[in-house]
Amino acid sequence: MSPQTPGGPKVVALGGGHGLSASLSALRQVTEHLTAVVTVADDGGSSGRLRSEFGVLPPGDLRQALAALCGDDEWGRTWAEVLQHRFASDGELSGHAVGNLLIVALWERLAQRSPGVVPGTSDAAAAAGAATDRHVAGLDWVARLLGARGRVLPMCAVPLRITAQVEGLDPENPALVRTVRGQSEVASTPGRVRSVALEPPDPPACPEAVAAVREADGVVLGPGSWFTSVLVHLLVPELATALHETKARRILTLNLAPQAGETRGFSPERHLEVLAAHAPDLRVDVVVADDAFVADHPALVDATTRLGAELVMADVAWTDGSPKHDPQRLARVYAKVLSS
Amino acid sequence: MSPQTPGGPKVVALGGGHGLSASLSALRQVTEHLTAVVTVADDGGSSGRLRSEFGVLPPGDLRQALAALCGDDEWGRTWAEVLQHRFASDGELSGHAVGNLLIVALWERLAQRSPGVVPGTSDAAAAAGAATDRHVAGLDWVARLLGARGRVLPMCAVPLRITAQVEGLDPENPALVRTVRGQSEVASTPGRVRSVALEPPDPPACPEAVAAVREADGVVLGPGSWFTSVLVHLLVPELATALHETKARRILTLNLAPQAGETRGFSPERHLEVLAAHAPDLRVDVVVADDAFVADHPALVDATTRLGAELVMADVAWTDGSPKHDPQRLARVYAKVLSS
Repeated sequence: MSPQTPGGPKVVALGGGHGLSASLSALRQVTEHLTAVVTVADDGGSSGRLRSEFGVLPPGDLRQALAALCGDDEWGRTWAEVLQHRFASDGELSGHAVGNLLIVALWERLAQRSPGVVPGTSDAAAAAGAATDRHVAGLDWVARLLGARGRVLPMCAVPLRITAQVEGLDPENPALVRTVRGQSEVASTPGRVRSVALEPPDPPACPEAVAAVREADGVVLGPGSWFTSVLVHLLVPELATALHETKARRILTLNLAPQAGETRGFSPERHLEVLAAHAPDLRVDVVVADDAFVADHPALVDATTRLGAELVMADVAWTDGSPKHDPQRLARVYAKVLSS
Repeated sequence: MSPQTPGGPKVVALGGGHGLSASLSALRQVTEHLTAVVTVADDGGSSGRLRSEFGVLPPGDLRQALAALCGDDEWGRTWAEVLQHRFASDGELSGHAVGNLLIVALWERLAQRSPGVVPGTSDAAAAAGAATDRHVAGLDWVARLLGARGRVLPMCAVPLRITAQVEGLDPENPALVRTVRGQSEVASTPGRVRSVALEPPDPPACPEAVAAVREADGVVLGPGSWFTSVLVHLLVPELATALHETKARRILTLNLAPQAGETRGFSPERHLEVLAAHAPDLRVDVVVADDAFVADHPALVDATTRLGAELVMADVAWTDGSPKHDPQRLARVYAKVLSS
């Protein structure tokens, strides 16, 4: 920890989708040194079409993170809205989000300028490295064009597919475990998710993401779709190792409610148990939860202790009672936890 | 003329495509009060697909004007390149320019927020007015998001189609005149264009474009595709009237070479003659030409005089001898003409 860094501590937030947006919206109020590390396993909708048309990383979760980091003035807020805008027509553009197209354009532009394979070599590792560099450079450029308040990195340098072991899909045989493939299928499964895995297994981490985690003062996991946006980061070996080894304060923010589909019926402590099952060696320093959404306090304390963590209970939900994080309230908790 | 206006004179450049880009690249060096009035008759490529998918004005020429007005620093130059970037794939996005998509997104966003027809009325004029307002507001927002150095307006509030009377298309009967429809067809016709017209005829001008012409210190027509980007502005009645009546200095910049297709074999004086044929009452104050590209000087002086204009001969082409305007050289001529 170096809380004396001008502009605030160096913080890395890992996740995807709306959960990561909430996390970034809070953390941008706490520090100017903010990096988002984002899942790249989406295979549905606009992202799915773009990864299939261009062979690139799915841009959707990256776009959402960039939108969450746009400026607070009218210019920045308008950019955020434009990034999130989806075309609605009967034609070929319908459903595409503007920000996804912008990200892919920057990637394509860089690919046309510097083809992936180093001339005179057929080194697959060098080609993969060049592709990673392009993905990172493209995202850095988009962030700069939008005046984003932080850096957005993919967790991994290759597009991923999530698979899940799911039980309860067969009414005749509720204990039968089936493999469900694809983030959108897993996120909306009517069954119970037991575990998730990645295809390809042990994918190469984005080196800049690994470095950011190692150099951070604080890392924040969650909230978000627990299996498909949060746990997946622990399945990228170099990223998991960096999370194990970093000197940063490790903060885990629990979801306020189970998610229809992947975590239906999950208690807060069950969230921690499946996390531990996917990364048995991971130590956590702080677990953030909201008392109003915890039914069995002693059970949560037990699960937190097993992770080596302190439980911080705070009012982090919107005051209207909806099970969503209020960025202002979450920011106050992060400011306190990161400065202690 | 009010050359004492801080930031330079108020200048309006009318045109489309590459010609208008050259004009704007020069004029932005002369003034901070720059408005582009842009043709909206393109029906080919990305623009053609978008006007058919969304029922909007074709954005391509508007995009090119915005790109020409992006900032001179690395941020602005990168935005200009990104706007002009075209996707290249085997899929649905291939051929679309990023800037076209951004413009259409802003229009669609405004349309979703404020539907065109005023509630409780079926007033077609009110609906058309609301659509015009949205097109202008959307372009103003895109310009602001990109930090553009000027305003970009459509010449007209409805998408147009250009038709041309073309002779020489029938080898058996070279004098036969045929009607050719569509900007892309007219621009590339192997015949000789005699005249152009618009569908719908007498379209409603964009009120902000008319006001800009009336309030300007200088208006610049050309260079550009003579029939499809330059003369078309004179076929919008309110815009033609404003050009007739404005107190602004009227500057006409000639193309340096005929254009394969619509002006093949045209001399500089022939360019002036077809302009006069389309707008018999139009007076021009200055015609800008480059001696190196004028074969018959006395004929050009005659044609210029018939328009009531002074002929300004200057080195405005690139020094490599290519028949294209050098924005630096053109800027020096405009600065002189606009301050005299």
